[in-house]
Amino acid sequence: MGLSNRITGLTGGTSGGWDLFFKARAMKAAGEDVTELTIGEHDVRTDPAILDEMHRAARAGHTGYADIPGIPALRDTIAARVQAATGVPTARENVVITPGGQAGLFATHMALCDPGERALYIDPFYPTYPGTIRGASAVPVPVTARPEAGFQPAQADIAKAASKGAASLLINTPNNPTGVIYTRDTLDGIAAQAQEQDFWVISDEVYDTQIWNGEHLSIRALPGMAARTLVVGSMSKSHAMTGSRVGWVVGPEEAVAHLINLSTHTTYGVPGFIQEAALFALNQGPGFEADIAAPFRRRRDIALSVLEGQNVVRAVPPDGAMYMMLDIRATGLSGQDFASRLLDERRIAVMPGESFGTAAAGHIRVAMTIEDSQFAAAFAELVRFAAALT
Amino acid sequence: MGLSNRITGLTGGTSGGWDLFFKARAMKAAGEDVTELTIGEHDVRTDPAILDEMHRAARAGHTGYADIPGIPALRDTIAARVQAATGVPTARENVVITPGGQAGLFATHMALCDPGERALYIDPFYPTYPGTIRGASAVPVPVTARPEAGFQPAQADIAKAASKGAASLLINTPNNPTGVIYTRDTLDGIAAQAQEQDFWVISDEVYDTQIWNGEHLSIRALPGMAARTLVVGSMSKSHAMTGSRVGWVVGPEEAVAHLINLSTHTTYGVPGFIQEAALFALNQGPGFEADIAAPFRRRRDIALSVLEGQNVVRAVPPDGAMYMMLDIRATGLSGQDFASRLLDERRIAVMPGESFGTAAAGHIRVAMTIEDSQFAAAFAELVRFAAALT
Repeated sequence: MGLSNRITGLTGGTSGGWDLFFKARAMKAAGEDVTELTIGEHDVRTDPAILDEMHRAARAGHTGYADIPGIPALRDTIAARVQAATGVPTARENVVITPGGQAGLFATHMALCDPGERALYIDPFYPTYPGTIRGASAVPVPVTARPEAGFQPAQADIAKAASKGAASLLINTPNNPTGVIYTRDTLDGIAAQAQEQDFWVISDEVYDTQIWNGEHLSIRALPGMAARTLVVGSMSKSHAMTGSRVGWVVGPEEAVAHLINLSTHTTYGVPGFIQEAALFALNQGPGFEADIAAPFRRRRDIALSVLEGQNVVRAVPPDGAMYMMLDIRATGLSGQDFASRLLDERRIAVMPGESFGTAAAGHIRVAMTIEDSQFAAAFAELVRFAAALT
Repeated sequence: MGLSNRITGLTGGTSGGWDLFFKARAMKAAGEDVTELTIGEHDVRTDPAILDEMHRAARAGHTGYADIPGIPALRDTIAARVQAATGVPTARENVVITPGGQAGLFATHMALCDPGERALYIDPFYPTYPGTIRGASAVPVPVTARPEAGFQPAQADIAKAASKGAASLLINTPNNPTGVIYTRDTLDGIAAQAQEQDFWVISDEVYDTQIWNGEHLSIRALPGMAARTLVVGSMSKSHAMTGSRVGWVVGPEEAVAHLINLSTHTTYGVPGFIQEAALFALNQGPGFEADIAAPFRRRRDIALSVLEGQNVVRAVPPDGAMYMMLDIRATGLSGQDFASRLLDERRIAVMPGESFGTAAAGHIRVAMTIEDSQFAAAFAELVRFAAALT
């Protein structure tokens, strides 16, 4: 008897970043005036019109088991959306609805990696990535994306990691935590390696509606890649529906058929009334999505203007997503120490770069998820704090 | 490249039972008048009051990421409910909320079984069981519960299966597909083996509010078992909330802590507004649950009265759940052939016993999930059909 090694070893070796997060939460709970720039969640709630549609669907009787692959109308709508954005032919059979993007990340690794196989991912990374891979009993292998390369992963580094074998490579663009969008060069390099060394790409594109500079490109659209790419999408970030837990995986029909079978054995589908709400939300069109994204664009501009005329804190170019990664190495502190002192001395909580792997050491991640004027004040305070350290 | 062996081998070797299910669906879709006695889902929708509470919670702003272990009030309520029913001290830390019972079945196997370990389950079985175990990369090992023993699993058979090693044993009482409730003797035997051969018990108790005869006993309440039992529960059957996908696992605090960590990496929690709705539903009390269960009790009585005065079709004593297992061996047909002919010749769809493993060969499962008078007519027709075969 005992618990499985898989579950007892699921996480571990993480830095103290999350300790800071919980410390900030505890300080707030104790009544202290702490400004949190930590969490990747909108400061607006899900739009009431979406919730009203959810209620309408539920009251209309959509409360029994829903089709496990997802309701046809939602699968069709996502397929059409993906095809329009990428040019890749995409039909209902290429789409499975999942209870959120995280469920998609887990399901794709389950579908591609057998126990003991190597699954690559890019460092810095969203904190669930290594544990998600371990959950599938695969071996997480980080590929460092260097700050001096603007956190774009290098083809040579991927080639080296894959040369020892790889079932899959997980990428995320626009990227959390860095706010970087992968360039066509970067994606071409990944695609070349995937085909040369014969591995799958899992492409986490949940921030694809939050683009501030440049263009989001889905690796599935590159030549030869549709057959070896699984794209993970979600309503969470694009439609401020984080708590509704609805997302999807898009990929080759055979893989999707197996993912549906996996759903039967792991989640048994997604509530029908939530799927109806997601369908309604997607049908609101691009203007609705732009409105959801607009605050992050505004705050990015605020932050960039605060950074002008100083060179202690340097921004990694914030091209997308709701985060900004700041290089604070000029202060002589680690990201961890900087964040710890910022919390203690200025009551501002940010995430140390070290919480996202080794590549973002000497950085901090700022989530642009609080109201504009508060954000501006806290960001200016952060920059003054850094300046005072030098 | 290729898909994982885990996912391509997830299911297989099933009988033609599901072909019949889909054939019946296709016949209905083509306009034929088919009576379906196949599915384990209420013929009522989720109560509007529950849906209104869900909407209230959502409109009140409970639309962001919910606490991953589950909202405290729901965990506390489930803990108190379980403690009241079983006498086993149970606190919030012993409860994790999952997106439905199936997610609980999968998570528990992930938590207990490492790749290649043997995971026992009882045959006849709910059809997802073997695939759920394979999904966790464990090896499914059936233990036959014989019809001549009223489908109660025998201690000696469990002992034999476990003697070659077992990480866990999955049981289900009240049982789907048989409608049997495990006796105290049965559970004592299982508990003795679990302790002697040092394995965990996963106890699927999702039908624990549907008791027609005798008493439901949770194996977790037996001496020494709380430390080695994970109980899977759900709102689906007890509160007609199948489509809401909300359930739970109850067990030792350490195991639950790891299950919460697993949730972070697989589902990222359950929608807060659904949890609020579940809390509201549980607070409606036992009368509400009895009302949900009442139709199945009535139809069981209808079926038993139809069976009186004949001995071609023999009922396995239907003590609980929404199903009745019928022994039709006196017709000389297999369950598969009987069900196939019943569908073709009388337009009544039932599930062959063979769809639930080998132990229920020569049986059919009748789901008591249609309106009383239709049920009575179809059941009488089924019995006449069987009589005409002899």
